[in-house]
Amino acid sequence: MDLTDKFKLVAPYVKQENVWEDYVDLATRYSPVNLGMGYADFLPPQHIIDALIQTLSSENPMLHQYTIAHGHPRLVTALSKLYSPLLNRAIDPNEEIIACAGAYGALYSTIMGHIQQGDEVIIMEPFFDCYELMVAAAKGTPKFIPLRFKENNTCQTGKWVLDFQELDKLFNNKTKAIILNTPHNPLGKVFDEMELLQIAQLCKKWNVMCIADEVYEWLVYEPKRHIKIASLPGMWERTITIGSGGKTFCITGWRVGWAVGPKHLIKNLQAEPAFISPTFIQEAIAIGIEKELARLEQDDCYLKSLGRSLQLKKDYLFEVLREIGMKPISTDAGIFLLADWTPLEEKADLSFEKDAYKDMQFTKWFTKNVGVLMIPVSIFYSEARKGLGENFVRLCFIKNDECLQKVAKILRDWKRST
Amino acid sequence: MDLTDKFKLVAPYVKQENVWEDYVDLATRYSPVNLGMGYADFLPPQHIIDALIQTLSSENPMLHQYTIAHGHPRLVTALSKLYSPLLNRAIDPNEEIIACAGAYGALYSTIMGHIQQGDEVIIMEPFFDCYELMVAAAKGTPKFIPLRFKENNTCQTGKWVLDFQELDKLFNNKTKAIILNTPHNPLGKVFDEMELLQIAQLCKKWNVMCIADEVYEWLVYEPKRHIKIASLPGMWERTITIGSGGKTFCITGWRVGWAVGPKHLIKNLQAEPAFISPTFIQEAIAIGIEKELARLEQDDCYLKSLGRSLQLKKDYLFEVLREIGMKPISTDAGIFLLADWTPLEEKADLSFEKDAYKDMQFTKWFTKNVGVLMIPVSIFYSEARKGLGENFVRLCFIKNDECLQKVAKILRDWKRST
Repeated sequence: MDLTDKFKLVAPYVKQENVWEDYVDLATRYSPVNLGMGYADFLPPQHIIDALIQTLSSENPMLHQYTIAHGHPRLVTALSKLYSPLLNRAIDPNEEIIACAGAYGALYSTIMGHIQQGDEVIIMEPFFDCYELMVAAAKGTPKFIPLRFKENNTCQTGKWVLDFQELDKLFNNKTKAIILNTPHNPLGKVFDEMELLQIAQLCKKWNVMCIADEVYEWLVYEPKRHIKIASLPGMWERTITIGSGGKTFCITGWRVGWAVGPKHLIKNLQAEPAFISPTFIQEAIAIGIEKELARLEQDDCYLKSLGRSLQLKKDYLFEVLREIGMKPISTDAGIFLLADWTPLEEKADLSFEKDAYKDMQFTKWFTKNVGVLMIPVSIFYSEARKGLGENFVRLCFIKNDECLQKVAKILRDWKRST
Repeated sequence: MDLTDKFKLVAPYVKQENVWEDYVDLATRYSPVNLGMGYADFLPPQHIIDALIQTLSSENPMLHQYTIAHGHPRLVTALSKLYSPLLNRAIDPNEEIIACAGAYGALYSTIMGHIQQGDEVIIMEPFFDCYELMVAAAKGTPKFIPLRFKENNTCQTGKWVLDFQELDKLFNNKTKAIILNTPHNPLGKVFDEMELLQIAQLCKKWNVMCIADEVYEWLVYEPKRHIKIASLPGMWERTITIGSGGKTFCITGWRVGWAVGPKHLIKNLQAEPAFISPTFIQEAIAIGIEKELARLEQDDCYLKSLGRSLQLKKDYLFEVLREIGMKPISTDAGIFLLADWTPLEEKADLSFEKDAYKDMQFTKWFTKNVGVLMIPVSIFYSEARKGLGENFVRLCFIKNDECLQKVAKILRDWKRST
């Protein structure tokens, strides 16, 4: 047996063929305007950078060394102050919060800490693709249920709903957890109270844990309101809620996230050092949150003003997409628009694209020939249901205005020329 | 079944009772001078902090967002320039290096990417305790072999050696990897060329991979020289070498490490986002390494001057330990001294300490009653061989001079009073 055979990859959580990397490669090779990945192309708020520089100028050498494994004290204290009123309880910063290397790290620790062979985990489609990979890494079994278009109306994200009879049938004695992503990526759907109560009822009936991925919690557009499922009766004790410093302050590269929940669950996420984020970054984010806490009711609170500034960008891109003939879906939250691209199918020559799904063919063709990179939505579906996403593309609108105007020009020029 | 039963911890890699946390708690409760954990109590070199502040002042928004999964381009480029001459080959920054969330993250990805049920992994005792946890996490089987005192002389770290006949017998068809930690934590041993050649020969004979944890590579004391096992004939293609930004620049809290090796192994460490470290930190460490590359042959090269400044601290603490009656082991590398504490046993009243091993009893008693925290060495041994470490304690000497002088005073006062 030669080296390559013996030392092939064994980790279950790494996809050998990573679709995301295809799109990173495309972006490198064709230099399109990139509306693919979910991050801002503008600088984060100055006060969070200032907090970091202030921290780095400190004489305290411990800000450069390991901090407490469950989270830097100043950060978990700030988080407890932020979340206690939202969850209607006094959250213990030392036992009911853990800071992790990104929300991704929090999710990974949550799943690895609770799921094992034989456990079923319910995942709603479309879904952030790492959910499936992580459940597989823990040797659990994902059970998928799609959000289905109500009244065959795909144009509003609120019309993509669970069939609760179908959901009911997925629960059984093997069900260990359900992953709830609200506000939802990629849909931008905000689950309403009735939906959450029905999910909660099933969790309680079957004694199932809820993993609530709420990283877009501050990016909800008027008049929608985000409700934390952990705040509903009987849910605190069975819910781990995951939040993100990167999504909250537009700093996805800083790699700080957290999980909030009851002590008996949080202790299972015990952070190994690999999943700790840098001490001085935790300190800086703590300072940032403290600043927001002090102005939470004011207009200039960043947590609230970010949504207002994004609403304009969202509406702008929505109109451009409609203008060129796509059918965009109106969204309630987050940083993405979904759009039905199929009205444009006849304008594209997909015959050279080899991918199995048409949205992948279209996005690749579009990147190469028109110069705008979008993400195919089939990648957010399980193997069996990729067809449900095939008519849609995802576009990220947390971009500076010049970028969005450039996209508008490219799309309009293309429309005119075809 | 109630909540607590159903949702108990399942992750194999988290020890339910973490000995390290006992000592963190002790440090909090008794406020001793803490020579336990391995980090500096002084500020990192100003040029690395300046590099970070410079990075944060950049107008480039991308330094705050996700970077390339296998490592920020500027960092992997700098690392390839640093390591190519040491490994006698041109290292490809894109395919033969990966940057991770700390050396710990690199080790975790290496083990999770290669080890599965049925695989045996050889680990030398004493060992950094995470090796055993990570192999267990991957469902592999650790096989331990102790470094044994040659000529019954425990006082020089170089006398702690492998019995190569014993090592030979550990290899078999199930052996997938051997973990080599040189320079060694906690011993400070630097494996010499003859030792490395014998390990290499067995790796080649059995087609086994070598995981070389070399995080203390720059902290080797004259006249010793660190040799990379990957530079020996036939070893590059089967070795992953792990390095640490935190250990290199005294910034353990920054959480950046890396792995270097052939493409067919490095690709198995494919970084999921949880294991990426923050973009701007990678940029700053790249700037730091570039600076050292430019002055590698000069006296003020930080990589080389750090060892010189630590030598004084090491020698100072060594003399103090000898003076009060311990038997310290002279060390060749790293930031720790080991010492045989048993000559002091009669001065300590261990009757109230409940731990199974005497070094744990002694260190806890010493923290509470004398005020200096040290780490028991039995924790660096497997369950079956903890007795081999029971006579020793580990002390970290990467502390400012005032701290070490305070320790000296406390220890001398205690000696006089007993």
